[in-house]
Amino acid sequence: MRTYLDCYPCFLRQALSAARRAGADEDQQRLILQRTCAELQTLPERATPPQMAERIHRLVRAEVDHSDPYLAAKQEATRAALERYPVLREHVRTADEPLDAAIRISIAGNIIDFGIFETYDLDATVDRVLTQPFAIDDRPRLRAALADAREVLFLADNAGETVFDRVLIEALDRPVCYVVKGSPVINDATREDAQAAGIDAIAEVMDNGSDAVGTLVERCSTAFRARLAAADLVIAKGQANYESLSSGPPPCGAPIFFLLQAKCSVIAAELGVATGSIIARQR
Amino acid sequence: MRTYLDCYPCFLRQALSAARRAGADEDQQRLILQRTCAELQTLPERATPPQMAERIHRLVRAEVDHSDPYLAAKQEATRAALERYPVLREHVRTADEPLDAAIRISIAGNIIDFGIFETYDLDATVDRVLTQPFAIDDRPRLRAALADAREVLFLADNAGETVFDRVLIEALDRPVCYVVKGSPVINDATREDAQAAGIDAIAEVMDNGSDAVGTLVERCSTAFRARLAAADLVIAKGQANYESLSSGPPPCGAPIFFLLQAKCSVIAAELGVATGSIIARQR
Repeated sequence: MRTYLDCYPCFLRQALSAARRAGADEDQQRLILQRTCAELQTLPERATPPQMAERIHRLVRAEVDHSDPYLAAKQEATRAALERYPVLREHVRTADEPLDAAIRISIAGNIIDFGIFETYDLDATVDRVLTQPFAIDDRPRLRAALADAREVLFLADNAGETVFDRVLIEALDRPVCYVVKGSPVINDATREDAQAAGIDAIAEVMDNGSDAVGTLVERCSTAFRARLAAADLVIAKGQANYESLSSGPPPCGAPIFFLLQAKCSVIAAELGVATGSIIARQR
Repeated sequence: MRTYLDCYPCFLRQALSAARRAGADEDQQRLILQRTCAELQTLPERATPPQMAERIHRLVRAEVDHSDPYLAAKQEATRAALERYPVLREHVRTADEPLDAAIRISIAGNIIDFGIFETYDLDATVDRVLTQPFAIDDRPRLRAALADAREVLFLADNAGETVFDRVLIEALDRPVCYVVKGSPVINDATREDAQAAGIDAIAEVMDNGSDAVGTLVERCSTAFRARLAAADLVIAKGQANYESLSSGPPPCGAPIFFLLQAKCSVIAAELGVATGSIIARQR
């Protein structure tokens, strides 16, 4: 997905939010905003939002000398999600269509996104997403692809959302390779966050070698790129994975299914849906 | 009022909104955003938000070669306000405290602000502001100052709001000099907008010689500055007048009363009130 002009103000908002979370003082916050402005002036027209977000969060980490400004927020998100895990798992176990329930729960977890929201209501989101109609619904194709797949390459999104993904992984009935970030960026899940969610007990956890949000394939490790090239089914969670993998040359031969909530007006317009919609879309 | 860092994203939002209203194509919109980013990098720390807004709206007018991008929006705002004028005037005529009702109506009109909102609900705002408690209430001091004043220098804000100001001017029982912008900027009232609201029939209309939002005294004409220096009571409407005149060296010897709604979170925080509050504050 290309960067829309409406993303520009949002990049400054995100830079300021990240600077504050990293403990930047006001002078540092101003410097980070000014440097973000400089980056925006040289942003290539075809850049995706995650390419700009990568620059912003590097700026913040460099200026504040804090390698993981969102660490506490990530740990709290995982804790809050784990508290709900038994109920979510039970919901899937007793559902008429367990896979469908698990897909919805994984998408509900996508509300945890400090790139967009400062706060969110987890329980209200789960209630909503469990019954909300899909605005784009390629679940039938996902089910068919799953039946044929040897393994699922699962591109993770955020810490805490990992617990909701765990519920889906447990329902997939296929070996899963769960791909996290190589090092911290915003509240995106790293290996530690996947482990804290208990995913290492049910799936292989791999990092993509990158500190960009979403999946900027050219920034990822050789090992991840080889795995992606050999994949036969990819599930990509969240807006940043959609933004980075939905357009351009196909990143792999396997079908890619995006599972996400359309949380901002720009991605909603791009998808042709209302803000707040839930999406299961095959690339 | 100084520019807060939270204003930075909002400046980009305002630049994009103004570019679109001016009919800029996407390339022009991008260029305007990039130039706004360049301006933000050199914005002096002590600059007020209207100083930055002035730069943005000059950029837009220069790039799109459109001297008054908000002309249609201003004319429609004036039309909608005039439609309500008889009811508003009747409300003041039958009120227990006509001056108080007229102050509230003038403040209600301050909802018309395309620098902040794309849309607004005029009738709901009037209903709210007619009964809402003042978050800052210097009306007693305003009434006392009015009793002593020979004349009121009334610094206007936006087109359409002018009609609501007319209701207040009619209740002031003092000669009024109504000061509008020297040339168009956003939807700020110019001489034509004051005339369309019928103000020229009940007050002297003067322009300040400037195309900045608010009142940047150093940018105003010698004639306006002389009038300001000689004033014995100033009423300044809206956020931009508050932002430009609330701090720094006193712009005149006369008391200044700011009448406004706190429409964004930054000015609300600066004033120590909730967003949406109504304010009558003496400088």
